Amino acid sequence: MEDRLEIRTRPRERIVVTACDLFHRHGIRSVGVDAIAEAAGTNKMTLYRHFGSKDDLVVEYLRKVANDAEAIWGQLEAGHPGDPIAQLNAWVRRAAECVIADGRGCDMVNAAVELTDPEHPARRIIEDFKKSYRGHLTKLCGAAGAIDAELLADTLSLLLEGARVSRQSVGAEGPSARFVRMSETIIATFPRHRAMEAGQPDI
Amino acid sequence: MEDRLEIRTRPRERIVVTACDLFHRHGIRSVGVDAIAEAAGTNKMTLYRHFGSKDDLVVEYLRKVANDAEAIWGQLEAGHPGDPIAQLNAWVRRAAECVIADGRGCDMVNAAVELTDPEHPARRIIEDFKKSYRGHLTKLCGAAGAIDAELLADTLSLLLEGARVSRQSVGAEGPSARFVRMSETIIATFPRHRAMEAGQPDI
Repeated sequence: MEDRLEIRTRPRERIVVTACDLFHRHGIRSVGVDAIAEAAGTNKMTLYRHFGSKDDLVVEYLRKVANDAEAIWGQLEAGHPGDPIAQLNAWVRRAAECVIADGRGCDMVNAAVELTDPEHPARRIIEDFKKSYRGHLTKLCGAAGAIDAELLADTLSLLLEGARVSRQSVGAEGPSARFVRMSETIIATFPRHRAMEAGQPDI
Repeated sequence: MEDRLEIRTRPRERIVVTACDLFHRHGIRSVGVDAIAEAAGTNKMTLYRHFGSKDDLVVEYLRKVANDAEAIWGQLEAGHPGDPIAQLNAWVRRAAECVIADGRGCDMVNAAVELTDPEHPARRIIEDFKKSYRGHLTKLCGAAGAIDAELLADTLSLLLEGARVSRQSVGAEGPSARFVRMSETIIATFPRHRAMEAGQPDI
């Protein structure tokens, strides 16, 4: 029974991992199910047994991206327990690493650009992910002392999204190269509660 | 002779206008040459007589986008002659209008997301356009008194690019709704030459 389960789950995982890689590198529309099945060492029939359609596989891909990305908030907290300012600075560094290391940008944004149909099932995943991300970053900005935490979070996240698409348009030497400096300048000049300025968190 | 020329040029223009509209609304990869020819009231053979390939048409589409966008700098100057601070504020308002009015975002950014092949001929157009835009905005930020004009221009343009892709991911109610407030806050807090603060341009 154990063995049978393993045999049944293995191709599914290979399909998901392969689809994530190909969609990320080449875009969703330019990768067909044939190419995914072949690269995953399986066939189209098996792929369709696990995923009713390419759209289902796209949804699974974005769910995986969302779950992986969700982990960052726990890591920031674990890295700097009880120190939200250090966590926010660490967020900037981590975000910059993503911008620099990966010229293909944010999977969620790219998917939103490609999947123009507002009824596409993936759009719900994208929207939920971005809302959750906004909630986490706003909470962190608030804990770090920002008076208008949502405005700071929105500014930083638009800068990050802009940096990631700019990196795709004009490469790593363009405006995205200064993401850290821009973010740090904005964080430093943003109005914050006085106790935080003196390094004494009051929340 | 005149008439023959007109007959020959008309379908080309219709093809270009139609392609621009369809590529913008549905993305480049999801629109085929058949659909463009049909919507332009012509046929594939005529389309291929004017454009050797779909890629050639994509290049023409992005050239048109670049030319149309280039016009903004002259309009800003004409609207507020000799007043770079007013021109910069007008740029923010114009940019915000684009964010709000058009949920499909920047054609150049979308094309960069879709055309992942670094050798695609359209990538050169995208890169040249973004470089030219950066040059214009940096010049304007410098004239408006910013000490590090390039950093301010890069910050504002990343914010705009972020706002336009965010608008595609989470709609008009998301972070992009506050693009004007973010930009004005950044412009107001950005280090500038003292003479400019007093409203006396020294350049």
